[in-house]
Amino acid sequence: MGALDEGHFCEELEKGVELEDPETLAIEDAVRVLLQGLGEDVAREGIRKTPLRVAKAFREGTRGYQQKVKDIIQGALFPEAGLDKSIGNAGGAGGLVVVRDLNLFSYCETCLLPFQVKCHVGYVPSGQRVVGLSKLSRVSDVFAKRLQEPQRLAGEICSALQDGIKPSGVAVVLQCSHLRFPTLGSLLLNSNNEVWSEILVMSGSGVFKDEENSECWTDFMSLLKLRVLKIEKSQTSDCWCPSQSSASPSCMACSGFMANPLMVSAVTKIIESIGEDPLRNELLGTPVRFVQWLMNFKETKLDLKLNGLGCKVQSYTEDESTIHSEMNLSFWSQCEHHLLPFHGVIHVGYFCTQGFNLLPKTLLQSVVHFFGFKLQVQERLTRQIAETVSSFVGGDVMVVVEAYHTCMISRGIEKSGSSTATIAVLGRFSTDASSRAKFLEGIPSSTGDHKI
Amino acid sequence: MGALDEGHFCEELEKGVELEDPETLAIEDAVRVLLQGLGEDVAREGIRKTPLRVAKAFREGTRGYQQKVKDIIQGALFPEAGLDKSIGNAGGAGGLVVVRDLNLFSYCETCLLPFQVKCHVGYVPSGQRVVGLSKLSRVSDVFAKRLQEPQRLAGEICSALQDGIKPSGVAVVLQCSHLRFPTLGSLLLNSNNEVWSEILVMSGSGVFKDEENSECWTDFMSLLKLRVLKIEKSQTSDCWCPSQSSASPSCMACSGFMANPLMVSAVTKIIESIGEDPLRNELLGTPVRFVQWLMNFKETKLDLKLNGLGCKVQSYTEDESTIHSEMNLSFWSQCEHHLLPFHGVIHVGYFCTQGFNLLPKTLLQSVVHFFGFKLQVQERLTRQIAETVSSFVGGDVMVVVEAYHTCMISRGIEKSGSSTATIAVLGRFSTDASSRAKFLEGIPSSTGDHKI
Repeated sequence: MGALDEGHFCEELEKGVELEDPETLAIEDAVRVLLQGLGEDVAREGIRKTPLRVAKAFREGTRGYQQKVKDIIQGALFPEAGLDKSIGNAGGAGGLVVVRDLNLFSYCETCLLPFQVKCHVGYVPSGQRVVGLSKLSRVSDVFAKRLQEPQRLAGEICSALQDGIKPSGVAVVLQCSHLRFPTLGSLLLNSNNEVWSEILVMSGSGVFKDEENSECWTDFMSLLKLRVLKIEKSQTSDCWCPSQSSASPSCMACSGFMANPLMVSAVTKIIESIGEDPLRNELLGTPVRFVQWLMNFKETKLDLKLNGLGCKVQSYTEDESTIHSEMNLSFWSQCEHHLLPFHGVIHVGYFCTQGFNLLPKTLLQSVVHFFGFKLQVQERLTRQIAETVSSFVGGDVMVVVEAYHTCMISRGIEKSGSSTATIAVLGRFSTDASSRAKFLEGIPSSTGDHKI
Repeated sequence: MGALDEGHFCEELEKGVELEDPETLAIEDAVRVLLQGLGEDVAREGIRKTPLRVAKAFREGTRGYQQKVKDIIQGALFPEAGLDKSIGNAGGAGGLVVVRDLNLFSYCETCLLPFQVKCHVGYVPSGQRVVGLSKLSRVSDVFAKRLQEPQRLAGEICSALQDGIKPSGVAVVLQCSHLRFPTLGSLLLNSNNEVWSEILVMSGSGVFKDEENSECWTDFMSLLKLRVLKIEKSQTSDCWCPSQSSASPSCMACSGFMANPLMVSAVTKIIESIGEDPLRNELLGTPVRFVQWLMNFKETKLDLKLNGLGCKVQSYTEDESTIHSEMNLSFWSQCEHHLLPFHGVIHVGYFCTQGFNLLPKTLLQSVVHFFGFKLQVQERLTRQIAETVSSFVGGDVMVVVEAYHTCMISRGIEKSGSSTATIAVLGRFSTDASSRAKFLEGIPSSTGDHKI
């Protein structure tokens, strides 16, 4: 059994001792094409195994295509007495059963990025039988682990449970959150970028068929409100995925973006290899959108431009013992190990040496964006920002990066809610613990922009 | 790959198409002995597959015995430049890296119940190399998935990362929460029962070796404080597990408890079968403690005593249109599918029919405990309480049960934070939606006693 569990399985894969199946190999080849299209050296040590990691993540993340609901529910239906129908509803006949706050993630069919799902499922038992509670989670996960759109996901979970359990009715409410990854352009224009696109969707069958007039829905929603403080049905929208929003600066029609055809067919191949039909209507534009998004991170010489920014026009004469700081600079980056976004905030503190200038916030924010928009690892991003700021202010710099990594929630370990922090300390900060402590104390508490 | 993933694997097991290994079979046999010791019919449909489910949960929950840290870290070390040592610390040489808020669970070696762990890990890279962030989580999980005690768990994670990554130092902080399952006696005595036993433990190596005087610890704890609002080192205690607390009424020396020797050797067999040594000092008393705890749920005829409670000494003459309610009655129960606790609160509402009495809160709380302390499923518990209360008040009763199931967080699906709710409606409540809505509105928001 040890050899079959998920943890061990991943180790095997990463060691490469396992023979890879043709689908995994096909995805690896496609990812190599994408990396080359980004101008990367696929033999570079940091990304040498990225194709395998990405292939594994896609296969794991879409394993729902290989799963059958019948297999999950079979053997998990238990006989349970109800009441005499004339006096009421309870137990295996009529008593509403609800499982709340299941954290899942799914893959957006429009852009191939993972999105987070808080899933609430209820059913009204009939026929004197109930289903094991964990099965409501497992069945929901089968459909989450596919290329999805929130309303279809809710509908598929609902139908599958209705068919599998044959209860009086099933209700599903999903709160979905999709990262709104901005373009570098929109960030530099300093437009007000929302971090998340959110939607609440519902689906019901049987006694929950009619959302507007069902007393069962009233009971169900009352039980959710006990836990879910803010639950409002969102405005329905044709394009909850930010890549399709007409307001987005990344709108293809407006930007006149021309995708590299080799990269586009590589993404098409990935969609095929996970078991989907790339010709399904909703997926037709997905490869181009994914490529367009990836091109955000093309290797550029943008950082060269930074050299001119640290000009010494004015000599700084203030007290050199003051720590200057800019807190909560937002950043967006792309993990080079998994080709998945990570984002968060960066805090910069520095002493300004005689002969150097104080740094305007806009300059620091630009430095952050320039180093963020490429294939990165958080440790390197932290160091590069510290080094660059150091060259502007004379050497005494401290940088703290606080990040949420999509790869930590949407791969095998599924650690939703976890976050990472990295520190770089240069000059005086590396030797003086009290300066470090003073700067760290000044960092405001979490901005709370994480969804789950 | 589809056939190897965790979800599919569980289905296979539950269908029984897989040949079980000798260890799983041995645990199944042992669980049958335990069920018989509890007076249960092991052929009863609800618990027929409980031995297999429990065996699977034990094997999954202690899979760390079969895992090697080397296999996880191998291939996950990446070259990453640092700074010139003369000017500071960053990137692959000296920049502190922290992963926060990893939700894990482990098994208490003292009583075999799962406990929850919020894990924070940091290390200071050296040798120009960093480790993939998810590996900090995976390695921590290897040691969590064993029979543990918090301080040893922290130490083992720390040593393993120090040996595997060879960094300048490793720091581990764990916030552990152990359910304090009370005895029926202590509940009926109405003593003030804390739901959780909590402890904060730390372990450090290298530059984190000295907890009291290390500047590195100061930096690390500052980064945790940004996220962890309340982080105080607990009083060290020899017996964080409630089963060993001398204040607990379940203290064996005081209760003179004599454990059934067949059940004790069955638990010893389980410990052996997961790959542990039952003669390890800390495990010597574990089988007796586990049996003692299980005996809380022995099939009794306690409910018969309830028949005398609903006596009609006074005729009730108040307005029959008033909903009387008792909210947040605590309950404790044992899931018959997994032999794991579930607990939470129960809300009872009723109309009092002419000729019946209002029910004192103590009576309702006793009813709840009587039906809780046995092998149960939440749906049945809800129905049984509703039926019993109904017999006391004349038929118009509504019961809502809100529960946290240990099996939802400590088995394959690991849905920490999820909760379940069930409803039973009798008489007027089953036909009058406005009465249901009025009662549901009156239920206070979550009591927030859940840890993760």
